[in-house]
Amino acid sequence: MNITIKKDRLIHSVNESLRAVASKTPLPILTTLKLFVSDQGLTVTGSDSDITIESFVPVEEEENQIIEINSLGEICLNARIFSEIIRKLPSDTIKIEVKDNFQTIIKSGKSEFKINGLDAINYPRLPSLENSKSYQLPTDLLKTIIRQTVYAVSTSETRPILTGVNWRVENEQLICGATDSHRLSKKTISFESSENINIIIPGKSLDEFSKLLSDDNEVVEISFTPNQILFKAKNILFYSRLLEGNYPDIERLIPIDRSTSLKLNTKDLLHAIDRASILARENRSNTVKLMTTVGSIEISSNTPEVGDVVEDVQLVQMNGDEVTISFNAKYMMDALKTVEGDEVEIHFTGTMRPFVLNGENDETLIQLILPVRTV
Amino acid sequence: MNITIKKDRLIHSVNESLRAVASKTPLPILTTLKLFVSDQGLTVTGSDSDITIESFVPVEEEENQIIEINSLGEICLNARIFSEIIRKLPSDTIKIEVKDNFQTIIKSGKSEFKINGLDAINYPRLPSLENSKSYQLPTDLLKTIIRQTVYAVSTSETRPILTGVNWRVENEQLICGATDSHRLSKKTISFESSENINIIIPGKSLDEFSKLLSDDNEVVEISFTPNQILFKAKNILFYSRLLEGNYPDIERLIPIDRSTSLKLNTKDLLHAIDRASILARENRSNTVKLMTTVGSIEISSNTPEVGDVVEDVQLVQMNGDEVTISFNAKYMMDALKTVEGDEVEIHFTGTMRPFVLNGENDETLIQLILPVRTV
Repeated sequence: MNITIKKDRLIHSVNESLRAVASKTPLPILTTLKLFVSDQGLTVTGSDSDITIESFVPVEEEENQIIEINSLGEICLNARIFSEIIRKLPSDTIKIEVKDNFQTIIKSGKSEFKINGLDAINYPRLPSLENSKSYQLPTDLLKTIIRQTVYAVSTSETRPILTGVNWRVENEQLICGATDSHRLSKKTISFESSENINIIIPGKSLDEFSKLLSDDNEVVEISFTPNQILFKAKNILFYSRLLEGNYPDIERLIPIDRSTSLKLNTKDLLHAIDRASILARENRSNTVKLMTTVGSIEISSNTPEVGDVVEDVQLVQMNGDEVTISFNAKYMMDALKTVEGDEVEIHFTGTMRPFVLNGENDETLIQLILPVRTV
Repeated sequence: MNITIKKDRLIHSVNESLRAVASKTPLPILTTLKLFVSDQGLTVTGSDSDITIESFVPVEEEENQIIEINSLGEICLNARIFSEIIRKLPSDTIKIEVKDNFQTIIKSGKSEFKINGLDAINYPRLPSLENSKSYQLPTDLLKTIIRQTVYAVSTSETRPILTGVNWRVENEQLICGATDSHRLSKKTISFESSENINIIIPGKSLDEFSKLLSDDNEVVEISFTPNQILFKAKNILFYSRLLEGNYPDIERLIPIDRSTSLKLNTKDLLHAIDRASILARENRSNTVKLMTTVGSIEISSNTPEVGDVVEDVQLVQMNGDEVTISFNAKYMMDALKTVEGDEVEIHFTGTMRPFVLNGENDETLIQLILPVRTV
């Protein structure tokens, strides 16, 4: 392998693939980035074995030459050291040449590095997804459904399956569900597919992929095998393993009957809870109380050692009975941050029953929170 | 105490004083900020007992009212909680009122906090520096001399005195010296004073004060007692304890004879060492080698497990013998970053003798580095 490549493009690709590289791993090869040069260009691969990111730099783009290839080949280089070297090199172009024993010369301006590489033959192979069916989603919609669900996954490994987001396709709908058993989020979009799909994608993978997705991608192509999913965007392939097991039926957790419905300005409510939480956090449980009053609701928190706080939030509309209920402030804020539109509807069925949030007249995103029992 | 104050000004002052508040302290009162209201305005004080910062908000400024005072007084409030509350309050003005038992009402818009305060009578008193002589320094000059010396103080408590910067005034000169016994920095400026001064200011204090100093201060007033220094800038008082003991005579450490003198472009050298250090750091000692060649110098590093690097930096000028010397890359970079002007001079007296750096024709800043013995 022997190439000369534009520095900024190499840095960009290395930064993308670096996101997947494990900082701690028993497998030394996973601390490296694999560089693979074909006639088409350079592929930089990083992996922690759960997530694999392949970032591609084409030889030419819009009639500008990006890579000059002198010989093809591949090499694995320590990810942390290689990425720091290329960021700091003095010239706009970088020459990379693999010599005997995987020694790799990196040259730029008057700087010359000789790095010990590893044989790329030992780098983990990726599953082939070439024969799998593929689907397309607009980038902004994909980012939205990830953002609206991934916050609700469990961070505990007690029930590993709950660390993932369930994607279920049936009746021309994609239903994305996440729950950590204290709250849940369910997003529904229309989705054309002749087959039924039911997979569980690790929340961490969705999060990482979402961060990688730049806005100049119009669509993302999605395909999967029973245990892998592949997201394909411009110059990037993102692989993630899938979680195995049966995801709980979240549908039956969502109450249908409603004894009280409130409509409130989303931001006003969010900020009031954020402030009440300053004191509520001091008692660890981060519990705030919501109480309907005349024309408004009161958000309050009382932590005897520190003090108390009362917030007044104007009601836009209220139907049904008066309600007093306590809940975890963080769960409520997480949910409110993903609601679209200026107003939020909250539906209660009782002080000790889960309550439901959705944007005004928008049932495509349903969020549920379990209340906290207070004395 | 009962005031209504503009939110942005209160936040600004609280942020300044908060820098001094200890995160961990056995004294609960030092986790608070003291608010003190006089006819002139509000003084916010934070302290970790080494450093004390008093930030002042005047009642009126440029004919704009900033504080409406209903009653004078003082109170101590938990610093972390108070600062978070005021940052998140909804309205542009904040009302603060101290009630019975130091309970403090904080009101803004439809938000109302009631916080348990502490009696300000228990807050540590500051030393009086009113009768001390005071000196003035231009703000930018003060920031420069701090930046050029404080990096060289010791971070180890083995010899506590070396964690400070020595300020010595004699013969109308202020000489600032810092050393961690591996390298040293000495900055000299002219300074009018009828008395000789010799104090040691903790490096951490200088660092903190420098960060506080905004560019709209023209001069800083400096006064001290035998164990305290006070920096006075616009609306801010910064107190620091001084270190006690005798600072070593750094003058005698600086070699006068020179066997080799190099002149180099500062940035070229800095960047070359920065790159060589990527590999040098891998062997913990972070040692790089400098070797003169024809018309240039070679910076190199060799870490067998990782690889090696050779950098070529063009010489602007060289006098004396060829030289090969090894040193800690970080020490060299720290020194080079504080050199003013485009070019740096380096003077050697032998492979195992300390070498000296200074800006081109500029002996007001002298920096010394001990070489590393290599086999």
